[in-house]
Amino acid sequence: MSFFSELVSTLFERRYQKFLSKEAEGRSTTDLARALLGSIGEVSGVAMAHTVLDRYETMNANEKLAFFEFMTHELEIDPEEVIETLKAYKADPNKDSYRSFAIASEPKRQELARRLNQVPGATGQLVQLRKDLLQVIKDRPDLGPLDVDLKHLFASWFNRGFLVLRPINWSSPADILEKIIAYEAVHAIDSWDDLRRRLKPEDRRCFGFFHPSMPNEPLIFVEVALTKGIPNSIQDLLTDEREAISAGDADTAVFYSISNCQAGLAGISFGNSLIKQVAADLAQDLPGLSTFVTLSPIPSLNRWLKQADLAKGIENQSASLAAYYLLEAKTADGSPYDPVARFHLGNGARIHAVHTGADTSANRLAQSNGTMVNYLYDLAKISHNHEQFVKDKTVVASAPVRTLCASVRTKITGK
Amino acid sequence: MSFFSELVSTLFERRYQKFLSKEAEGRSTTDLARALLGSIGEVSGVAMAHTVLDRYETMNANEKLAFFEFMTHELEIDPEEVIETLKAYKADPNKDSYRSFAIASEPKRQELARRLNQVPGATGQLVQLRKDLLQVIKDRPDLGPLDVDLKHLFASWFNRGFLVLRPINWSSPADILEKIIAYEAVHAIDSWDDLRRRLKPEDRRCFGFFHPSMPNEPLIFVEVALTKGIPNSIQDLLTDEREAISAGDADTAVFYSISNCQAGLAGISFGNSLIKQVAADLAQDLPGLSTFVTLSPIPSLNRWLKQADLAKGIENQSASLAAYYLLEAKTADGSPYDPVARFHLGNGARIHAVHTGADTSANRLAQSNGTMVNYLYDLAKISHNHEQFVKDKTVVASAPVRTLCASVRTKITGK
Amino acid sequence: MSFFSELVSTLFERRYQKFLSKEAEGRSTTDLARALLGSIGEVSGVAMAHTVLDRYETMNANEKLAFFEFMTHELEIDPEEVIETLKAYKADPNKDSYRSFAIASEPKRQELARRLNQVPGATGQLVQLRKDLLQVIKDRPDLGPLDVDLKHLFASWFNRGFLVLRPINWSSPADILEKIIAYEAVHAIDSWDDLRRRLKPEDRRCFGFFHPSMPNEPLIFVEVALTKGIPNSIQDLLTDEREAISAGDADTAVFYSISNCQAGLAGISFGNSLIKQVAADLAQDLPGLSTFVTLSPIPSLNRWLKQADLAKGIENQSASLAAYYLLEAKTADGSPYDPVARFHLGNGARIHAVHTGADTSANRLAQSNGTMVNYLYDLAKISHNHEQFVKDKTVVASAPVRTLCASVRTKITGK
Amino acid sequence: MSFFSELVSTLFERRYQKFLSKEAEGRSTTDLARALLGSIGEVSGVAMAHTVLDRYETMNANEKLAFFEFMTHELEIDPEEVIETLKAYKADPNKDSYRSFAIASEPKRQELARRLNQVPGATGQLVQLRKDLLQVIKDRPDLGPLDVDLKHLFASWFNRGFLVLRPINWSSPADILEKIIAYEAVHAIDSWDDLRRRLKPEDRRCFGFFHPSMPNEPLIFVEVALTKGIPNSIQDLLTDEREAISAGDADTAVFYSISNCQAGLAGISFGNSLIKQVAADLAQDLPGLSTFVTLSPIPSLNRWLKQADLAKGIENQSASLAAYYLLEAKTADGSPYDPVARFHLGNGARIHAVHTGADTSANRLAQSNGTMVNYLYDLAKISHNHEQFVKDKTVVASAPVRTLCASVRTKITGK
Repeated sequence: MSFFSELVSTLFERRYQKFLSKEAEGRSTTDLARALLGSIGEVSGVAMAHTVLDRYETMNANEKLAFFEFMTHELEIDPEEVIETLKAYKADPNKDSYRSFAIASEPKRQELARRLNQVPGATGQLVQLRKDLLQVIKDRPDLGPLDVDLKHLFASWFNRGFLVLRPINWSSPADILEKIIAYEAVHAIDSWDDLRRRLKPEDRRCFGFFHPSMPNEPLIFVEVALTKGIPNSIQDLLTDEREAISAGDADTAVFYSISNCQAGLAGISFGNSLIKQVAADLAQDLPGLSTFVTLSPIPSLNRWLKQADLAKGIENQSASLAAYYLLEAKTADGSPYDPVARFHLGNGARIHAVHTGADTSANRLAQSNGTMVNYLYDLAKISHNHEQFVKDKTVVASAPVRTLCASVRTKITGK
Repeated sequence: MSFFSELVSTLFERRYQKFLSKEAEGRSTTDLARALLGSIGEVSGVAMAHTVLDRYETMNANEKLAFFEFMTHELEIDPEEVIETLKAYKADPNKDSYRSFAIASEPKRQELARRLNQVPGATGQLVQLRKDLLQVIKDRPDLGPLDVDLKHLFASWFNRGFLVLRPINWSSPADILEKIIAYEAVHAIDSWDDLRRRLKPEDRRCFGFFHPSMPNEPLIFVEVALTKGIPNSIQDLLTDEREAISAGDADTAVFYSISNCQAGLAGISFGNSLIKQVAADLAQDLPGLSTFVTLSPIPSLNRWLKQADLAKGIENQSASLAAYYLLEAKTADGSPYDPVARFHLGNGARIHAVHTGADTSANRLAQSNGTMVNYLYDLAKISHNHEQFVKDKTVVASAPVRTLCASVRTKITGK
Repeated sequence: MSFFSELVSTLFERRYQKFLSKEAEGRSTTDLARALLGSIGEVSGVAMAHTVLDRYETMNANEKLAFFEFMTHELEIDPEEVIETLKAYKADPNKDSYRSFAIASEPKRQELARRLNQVPGATGQLVQLRKDLLQVIKDRPDLGPLDVDLKHLFASWFNRGFLVLRPINWSSPADILEKIIAYEAVHAIDSWDDLRRRLKPEDRRCFGFFHPSMPNEPLIFVEVALTKGIPNSIQDLLTDEREAISAGDADTAVFYSISNCQAGLAGISFGNSLIKQVAADLAQDLPGLSTFVTLSPIPSLNRWLKQADLAKGIENQSASLAAYYLLEAKTADGSPYDPVARFHLGNGARIHAVHTGADTSANRLAQSNGTMVNYLYDLAKISHNHEQFVKDKTVVASAPVRTLCASVRTKITGK
Repeated sequence: MSFFSELVSTLFERRYQKFLSKEAEGRSTTDLARALLGSIGEVSGVAMAHTVLDRYETMNANEKLAFFEFMTHELEIDPEEVIETLKAYKADPNKDSYRSFAIASEPKRQELARRLNQVPGATGQLVQLRKDLLQVIKDRPDLGPLDVDLKHLFASWFNRGFLVLRPINWSSPADILEKIIAYEAVHAIDSWDDLRRRLKPEDRRCFGFFHPSMPNEPLIFVEVALTKGIPNSIQDLLTDEREAISAGDADTAVFYSISNCQAGLAGISFGNSLIKQVAADLAQDLPGLSTFVTLSPIPSLNRWLKQADLAKGIENQSASLAAYYLLEAKTADGSPYDPVARFHLGNGARIHAVHTGADTSANRLAQSNGTMVNYLYDLAKISHNHEQFVKDKTVVASAPVRTLCASVRTKITGK
């Protein structure tokens, strides 16, 4: 189907390009964008959208910035009109008065994004546009409203109900696999051989969410190891000397790496859904599995310890310090300080165990002296844990982890 | 994939249903909808969305009405808040102030629809919900704003860029084909044998748009006959005594039937895109094709003639009257009076020829004495025609049709 | 892929047809067949094979007969050459001498069939050729050797390892489904509505074997009903008033119809494999299933009773008579007299129960007064039963069936 | 489908393994093979075939040899029986007498191979078995008859009509692509990056033949470059600095590498079919293509020159020498001496041009001083060329090549 639609769109382009090009020649991209917003029918609309997107792709940084400014400031709401239509709606609430208000209160940049999205393949290009935007937004807070609108649209387009879960394995297309290599953000994949070791053995699994309009682009993926017992070392888990076990013999599924792939979809959360759906899927497929667990980094442990001036005199108690950090270190609003902890605890997982020497990579030594943590997903309890966490930020942890934590707490507080 | 995701969602349901059911038992559907809007995480969210949709399906008419009222009136914007956040945004335009305004100015029913849509398969259920709404809205104009919002969401979800064009033929799944039988709105298909005659011969084609989240539901489809020369009779075109020609020998593609399938997507236009993409596709596939044309009914001819009190004395000049009607009969705003003419002329087609005795079915005799019309899609001119039509309602017609029209005009106006 | 290969083969044909046609024009089909056998390369070979097969399709009965005669008698072994090469091989057994013998002892008609089979789609045409042959062979026993060779080739080409098991359901292509309607040989399917009732409900299944070279042609298919308990009436099983049960609630899978589809594959057995693979598959998919059983006709009961002059005075004891017949009526070589019984018992099933009034159709009343039988496939015992049956024709039956049988035996024999 | 059948077969195995294992425990593999040949039904047959194939896979070289001996010598024809059944058939030619002869004259090893092939996946294992056989056959000519029979069976199973042509590109499964890297026999692919350069650009294509029972194993594949004009250097063609052209702009398709993949299918020719089908396919897809040509090595040039003691004094005339060699160097039976020339000329191609310095790799310098040759496939003439070549070994070459050749001939022969 993809090949077919490509053919057709090429044809479309060729046919209409000549009619359009003359017309488009002398016009700026913003002019075309205005015309696209004004067009009623679709004929020239798709051709204009094509041209706008094509031009965007070849813009330099300054031109992109100018385009963002155009979208933010020119395609902005008119406050007078919002108030006027709101009054009219309040006075006589009906379909027409409401529609006028709805149109007035939504900036035209949203409609522009939807019209650009008529072009096959445009969704990915718009995600890329937001990625570009996010790179400049820190220096240009005035573009914030554009980001709010794009994120709003993307949340609707990339709604969970539209996503497709696909297994990724050694039979997957190479053009997808090379993206797995590129996007892996937790434990780098250094070659195709390394990738094969993660995907091919019978006791390894990988799954990703895809959107039908970006069929070759994973949005997020998770790598899973099937093991006997809960692992305590990432190097042991990934060593190329290990021997694969039969999937049917495994009792534990270890989610050892989760990577978001699309910077342009920042803030739209998929990981929560992914872990649960994969767990449910594996449970169905492999009835022998009874434990679903992560082996996760603790990325901000050392930074916090340093900043809290804490570890002195108990440097050698890595495990206890990690436990204390995970349970007690909080942000201003009372959430866990550690971002990975926030993610998994927010999903309804609980802290199961901490392991020293669990990741001897330079990166992880710097972050946490190599200490890692298992978050456990108990399908029967994640709903409850999640509710508790949302309600009052309760962090659930196993008894041994609580004991470890308590030992540090006592030292510090005397309690 | 569909089988797989079905399995998983079933599992999901079973797992969470038991946790939810206790909780949900005593609560009304609107209560659950409120909770769904309030939920932060996704765990129980999906389960609640499931329950709300399941309950909706079993509601009677009154209960549905009450649910529409809830969505319209309770999940409404707060005008004070809109004004307040608007003022704050104007005073200090930034990401946060804009986000507050954006949230305030969008009724919560939109967010509810998006959250319901997290459930796999929910999109089709929401389309069904709007179908139900449209059936009561005439008597309940106060529900208009809900319809505006659903249409707004659907226009975004069913954006052209998300649709997939699929050929429909005698190798298509039976569950799709039975929908073709059910949805055919122009020339009824009376049996599977009739359907086979429309799909199987080498000189017949059918294409439909589908949405990835409703894979078994065509949104719109078009039936095409490949012919030598432009046909002037639908009965000749569809007779079961004809002999199929080789597709490679055809010079003309006749779009003889276009049917919208989803009442719940009313007002979201697909036909324009469909005809052009199918024409482009066929042109690529069969280089012998040079003419793309419809054989279309003239549904409002007789009604208009009667109302205009026009045909007296020239009843026998059916072709001329039809030509006159197509070119001169207008609505209040100057558009063609005939809805089918509005559609094709708006797409950039031109009136090519009118044929008397072209459809001898009772229905068509009543509408137009059996007269039909060819609209011609000249790929090189549709863009220009369309622009003209949009700008000043220009109706383009062939010389013979204009001559026919002129003969009547002279009689009536003396000019 | 099928569309693609069709395109290519069409192209091939067009390209080469013109070169070939001149050459082929004046030549008889048998001449072309001889040339095809003589050709070394493949270029003109495929074109010649195409022409031979095309011509075969348009032959009348006499011409086909002549072609069969050609294949049987002209493409025959040369006995002298067989003996000569055999002697040479015996004298000096090596690769070359063996190859000479192997070529001499295999009639050239086999090689002709293989060369015809180079053409995409030819396999189905050759199966059709054997179907034609089987229709005349009774009157032409001299063509027997051709049938032996075709069956030998087909047994190799349609080896179990090459077949694909595919589910057939209401999402299957219509062109396959219309063949299911046509080929159903046990309980006729009288309309597409009837077909939908057999395929769509959650408690119905259908599976068929397909060959990759005949992707739209089922070779054999089995219809399955999922039930609670073992059924005793086909009308109850198929009534359109019944309510479907949830597949997960079923404890029994009933194989109520098995139909061979290809007359040209007569004598090549697929049913045995099919039942077992489907049973294994269902057991995997639906762990609640514990019983795999048929509800089968007893096609030769009345014929045998009449011929054995047996039923007098005990006409009213239908069940007992059926039991007696199934256990005691034998062919000359000691096999069960009933062909359906031979099939299932040969597969390793056992006779579980007989039911009077189980099929009230005219056909079945004539065959067996409406009595039917359950053959039970106990996956743990079919291997053993099968071995016993092969070794000494042992018929395994349940205690109640044996008791029923004994009552008749006593009456007849006094024992 | 593959995943599904794998599941089922696993289940099958588990179910029956326990029944079989006891029985099989004390029995040798040859005993089981004998039992498999004797078995009538399929139940235990498939299980026995499984066991035999599993055991074969773990055999060491001596055990394999013993198994080959068993198949060759024990499962041999009985000459007496051949003669006896032949006599009976001659005396009374009918179906039964012919069947007896057919059975007697075919060694039981063929039937064993067919029965082993009942197991899903067995075809690939049997191809592997022949690969093993071919490695020992030089030292064990007595096993020749086994090879004759396997090749005979494979020629039937891998008949052109059963093969599927599939494009291989950067979207193909990694497990197939790694085989392309492994099997490339002409211009080695040294990394995944190198592979990407051969498959991903718009002006590169690759196609392979596959058999439905070995879906992940290419049988043969061809790599194609789309170019403007006929290339004269493989390094230029493959350099990673080149810029891809648009496929629509190419006028020439260059078949620059053809690799057979399965040693176990030696002697069964696919290359002829492959080139022609790919040429036909590309011609259909890209109407701009008018030239189909190879850029081929001349593997035996230097060996022959040396052996013919020929190049002295004209070493610097590489092109002329190559032309002379290609046209005049013959084997004992008058065929071209060069194996690659034999292949392409036998397919109906003609010699178009020779290029010095066309391949600067060490291997090619040693073979031919880096000289390469274009064989041209003129679709309108290959049939004729092929016939000529078969009939009287005519080598067709372009005028320039003939002129080059003549210059050497004159020097040598004075004519």
